[in-house]
Amino acid sequence: MIKEMYTFEDFLRQPIGDRLPYYEKDERLYHIMISQQFSYPFLEKLFDTADLIKYITRKPNGIEFLTSLLKHKRAMLYFTQPSTRTFLSFLSACQIVGIHTGEVRDPTLSSEMKGESQEDGLRTFSSYFDLIIMRDSKAGFCEYMSYLLDLTGRSVPIINGGSGKDQHPTQALLDVYTLHRSFQERGGIPGKVYGFVGDLLRGRAVRSVIYLLTRYSNLEMFMIAPPRLQIAPDLEAHLKDHGVKVHKTDNLEEALPHVDSLYMTRVQDEYDLSGESEILDYSKFHLTIENINLMKDDAIVLHPLPRRHEIDPRLDSDPRAMYWRQLRNGMYIRAALLLYLFNMEHRLVDY
Amino acid sequence: MIKEMYTFEDFLRQPIGDRLPYYEKDERLYHIMISQQFSYPFLEKLFDTADLIKYITRKPNGIEFLTSLLKHKRAMLYFTQPSTRTFLSFLSACQIVGIHTGEVRDPTLSSEMKGESQEDGLRTFSSYFDLIIMRDSKAGFCEYMSYLLDLTGRSVPIINGGSGKDQHPTQALLDVYTLHRSFQERGGIPGKVYGFVGDLLRGRAVRSVIYLLTRYSNLEMFMIAPPRLQIAPDLEAHLKDHGVKVHKTDNLEEALPHVDSLYMTRVQDEYDLSGESEILDYSKFHLTIENINLMKDDAIVLHPLPRRHEIDPRLDSDPRAMYWRQLRNGMYIRAALLLYLFNMEHRLVDY
Amino acid sequence: MIKEMYTFEDFLRQPIGDRLPYYEKDERLYHIMISQQFSYPFLEKLFDTADLIKYITRKPNGIEFLTSLLKHKRAMLYFTQPSTRTFLSFLSACQIVGIHTGEVRDPTLSSEMKGESQEDGLRTFSSYFDLIIMRDSKAGFCEYMSYLLDLTGRSVPIINGGSGKDQHPTQALLDVYTLHRSFQERGGIPGKVYGFVGDLLRGRAVRSVIYLLTRYSNLEMFMIAPPRLQIAPDLEAHLKDHGVKVHKTDNLEEALPHVDSLYMTRVQDEYDLSGESEILDYSKFHLTIENINLMKDDAIVLHPLPRRHEIDPRLDSDPRAMYWRQLRNGMYIRAALLLYLFNMEHRLVDY
Repeated sequence: MIKEMYTFEDFLRQPIGDRLPYYEKDERLYHIMISQQFSYPFLEKLFDTADLIKYITRKPNGIEFLTSLLKHKRAMLYFTQPSTRTFLSFLSACQIVGIHTGEVRDPTLSSEMKGESQEDGLRTFSSYFDLIIMRDSKAGFCEYMSYLLDLTGRSVPIINGGSGKDQHPTQALLDVYTLHRSFQERGGIPGKVYGFVGDLLRGRAVRSVIYLLTRYSNLEMFMIAPPRLQIAPDLEAHLKDHGVKVHKTDNLEEALPHVDSLYMTRVQDEYDLSGESEILDYSKFHLTIENINLMKDDAIVLHPLPRRHEIDPRLDSDPRAMYWRQLRNGMYIRAALLLYLFNMEHRLVDY
Repeated sequence: MIKEMYTFEDFLRQPIGDRLPYYEKDERLYHIMISQQFSYPFLEKLFDTADLIKYITRKPNGIEFLTSLLKHKRAMLYFTQPSTRTFLSFLSACQIVGIHTGEVRDPTLSSEMKGESQEDGLRTFSSYFDLIIMRDSKAGFCEYMSYLLDLTGRSVPIINGGSGKDQHPTQALLDVYTLHRSFQERGGIPGKVYGFVGDLLRGRAVRSVIYLLTRYSNLEMFMIAPPRLQIAPDLEAHLKDHGVKVHKTDNLEEALPHVDSLYMTRVQDEYDLSGESEILDYSKFHLTIENINLMKDDAIVLHPLPRRHEIDPRLDSDPRAMYWRQLRNGMYIRAALLLYLFNMEHRLVDY
Repeated sequence: MIKEMYTFEDFLRQPIGDRLPYYEKDERLYHIMISQQFSYPFLEKLFDTADLIKYITRKPNGIEFLTSLLKHKRAMLYFTQPSTRTFLSFLSACQIVGIHTGEVRDPTLSSEMKGESQEDGLRTFSSYFDLIIMRDSKAGFCEYMSYLLDLTGRSVPIINGGSGKDQHPTQALLDVYTLHRSFQERGGIPGKVYGFVGDLLRGRAVRSVIYLLTRYSNLEMFMIAPPRLQIAPDLEAHLKDHGVKVHKTDNLEEALPHVDSLYMTRVQDEYDLSGESEILDYSKFHLTIENINLMKDDAIVLHPLPRRHEIDPRLDSDPRAMYWRQLRNGMYIRAALLLYLFNMEHRLVDY
C-alpha cells in the first residue's frame, strides 16, 4: 500500500534509463524532459505541425480556429528561475492554441514561506491544471518532479522549460527547427557545417541543441571558445560516437568562412560566482560589422538570446541574422508541442 | 448628502449583526465573508452544484459549456497576503466557469506607494471588475471593505479569501464538502466523530470548519492539541450551545481509534513572532506510517495544506488520505460559489 | 544594408517632428505616444466609440459581442514603473474587446538580470505580441522604443501608458472624455472655465490634459498652486498661443465660485528626492466638505487618482464628484482606442 520513493539525491544517482522510463523508447512522449527524448520521426512531424501553425496564424479566422483546439485545457507556468523570454514564449504558445494559464513566477510569494515542500507545491498544481510548464535552477529537478507525479497515479504532463545548467529541451527544438527551415531548400540539416561560439562548457542551450543535432547525419562542427570554456568531454565523446567531425579552436575569424550556421552564445556568468569570466577577454568571440563579412552569403546566425555584446545590434538588419526569427519560431514550435501532448495535431488538417 | 462612515477601528467595535446586515438572515448571499453565513439549505444546494460541475468537467464539451456560463464577467484577485494555493484555486474556479481575471498579488507593486488608501484601491477594483476576491492579513478588513463598497451605492460582491487569523469561509466550504462526499453513502455528516489535530487556537481553517459543522446535528469531536494551543473558550462555548460532545486531549494515539475523520493542521508560526512554537515538541501530533493503523479502515484524513511534517508523504497513497482530493474539491466548490453569486447555478441543468 | 540608429540620448536631441514622424499629421495613428497627436476629429470619433462601448456592455450578449471583436489579437503589458490603476484599466480594456494579454510588471524578474538591453526586451515582446502597452520611468523612452521597432521593419503599435514626468496620453483622453460627457447637454467643452489645483509643475496628467484641451476653443483656466509649483513657462506659452485666458493664483477659495470643472491633483513627491514638498503647507489646496459649497451646483470635480488628502472621502457621495466615473471612463476610452488601433471601431454598428 505504502509506496517508497527516492529522495531527490537518490533519484539523481539512478542510471538515466531508470530515472526516465521513457528514455530512448519509441513511444508517444508524455513528459518533455531532455533533448535525447526526441527521435528523428518525432522532430519531422513536429516541424510540419509548427509550419502549419505558422501558416494558419496569418489569418484572423485561422487564429480563431487554433484557439478553439485546446480551450478546454489549462496550464500552470511555474517559473522559479527568472526568465521573461521563455515564460512569454510558452504563454504565447498556450494562447495560440487556446490553453488558459495560471502562473507562479516569484517563489517568494508562494506558500513555501509556510514550509511546504516543492513536491507538495507541484502536486497542488497538478491538482488544478492539466499541464505544468516549469523552470527551476536545480539540474534534474523537473525529472524528479515527473517521477513523483507519476507515483501518485494522477499525473499530468510536465514540460521542462529549462533546468539549471542542465537541459533546455524546447530551446533545442526551436534551434533545430530554425535550422530545418533555413536549410529547407538546400538539402536540409545533413551535410552542413555548424559553428558554436562562446561559453560551450556551461551554456545549457548549446548542450541541448548539439545533442539534438546528432539525430542528423554527416555533420561537421566548429567549437569556438576560450580553452577553459570548451565543450565538456562527455559531449565531445557523444559527438564522436555519432560520427560528427569536430574542430576545436579559439579563433573565430579562421572558422567563420567555413560555417553554414553560426550559433552565438553569451558567457553564463549567472552561474559564475567566482567572477572569473570577467577577467576573460571575451571580445575575440564577438560577431561585428567587420568580421561577419568573412561568412558565406547564405550562412545564418543564431543566438538563443538574451544577448549582451556578442552580436552588434546593427547586424540585426543583415539578412544572415536569423535570431529574431528563431525567437518567433520558438513560439510556434512550443504551440506544436502543446498540440502534440494533447494529441490534437491531427486536427490542423480540418482547417 | 454627505454620508458619514465608520473608521475601520469603529467598525470592528460594532456588534456583528450591525457590521454584517445579512448575518444569520435567510436571504440570497451577496458578499461571502464568514462561515456563519452559510445555512444548511445553502450548503446542500451548493454541494449539489459542485457535484454537477465535477461531473460536467469530465468531458471536453462539458468544459466548454461551463466556460460559456460567466464569460461576460470579470473578477479581481486581490491577494496582499501570500497564498499560492488559495490564489490558484480561485483562479482555476474562475477559469472553469469562464470568468476573466485580473490580479494584484504583490502590494509593493501597487499605487499604495503613492499614499493611496486601501479603501480607494478597492473602490478602483470595483470600478473595473464585477467581483473582488481578496485575502488580507487584517482580521475583519474584508468585512469593512464590503461595508464601504455598499455605501457607495455601486457595490460588487466581495469574497473573503482568508483574513488574518480570523476567517477563511471558502476553506470551510471545501472541508465540509469533502466530508459530505466522503460520508455520502454512510449517512452523511451527522452522527460521525471528528478529530482535529494541531494548533487549534490560531488556525483559522479549523475555526471556520468547526463553526460550519455546527449546521449538522449529533456530532462528537476530539480536540487533540498541546494544552496551550487548545481551542479558544468562545469556540468551545459555541460547540456546547449546539450540542456537540467535545473531548479535549493531548494524546493523539488514544483518540485515533475513535474518529471517522481526522483533520490535521500545521503550527501557525507565521503568526508567532515570539518563536515559542519552535520549543513545543510537535512530533506527538504527527500522523505516521505507524500510528495511522490505529485508525478505522474507513476513516478519512483531511488537511487544509500546506503541510510540513504533520503527515508523512508516504501516507499519500493510503486510501484514507483525502487531502489531495480535498484540494481539488476546493476548486469545484469555489466554481459553484461563483455560479451562485451570479445566479447562474440553475443553468447547469441545460447541459 | 546595415542601418545606423540613434542612441537614446541622441534621439532625445532631435526636434519633435523628426522624432515622431507622425506628429501633427492628419493620418491614422499607429503608435500612441503624446497628447499632441490627437486631433479634434480623432477625439470626437473616439468619444463616440467609447459611448457605444459603454452602452453595449450593459447587456451580457453585448459583452460577448465586444469580446469577439479582437479575440485574434494579443497584447503585452510592460509596466516597469509601478501602477496598479493604469495597469488594471488597460487590462480591463483589453478584456472588454477580447484581447489576450501577457504581462511584465516587475523588471527584477526579467532577463535584464542577464545583461540584456531594454531594446532587445521590447523587440522580444513585439515578436510575440500584436501590441505593446508600456509604462516606463524615463521621459521619451516609449518614443525611442517605437522608433527602434519601426527600424526593424516588423513593428507593432506601442501605447504609452505613462512615461516619466512627461506624458500620459491615455489619461488625457479619459479626462477630456469625462469633460465631454459631463458638458454634453450644456454646449460641450468650449466656453467653460477650468480650474487645475495642486502640483501643476510636475504632474504629467495635468500637462497632458491641458495640452489636449487646446483642441477646443474659447477656454478660460484657473491655475491654482503654490508659486513654486505653478505651470511651466512652455505650457503657459502654449496656452497663450491657443488663446486660452489664464489666471494664476494660490487662493483656492477665491477661484472655486468661477470654475465649471475643478481638476484636483496630488503632490508628485515620488519625483521629489529633496523632500521639499513635505515642508509646503498643502492643506490650502484641499477640497473639503466646507469649501466645496463655494462651487456652482452643476460644476464637476475631477482627479486622476490616486488621491491622498486633496479630497475628503466624504465628498465621494456629492453629485459633483466625478472622479470615480472618470476612472471607469478610462476603461471605456482605452477599449475604444484598442478598437481604433486595429481598425475595428466600425464593427460596433453591427451590434
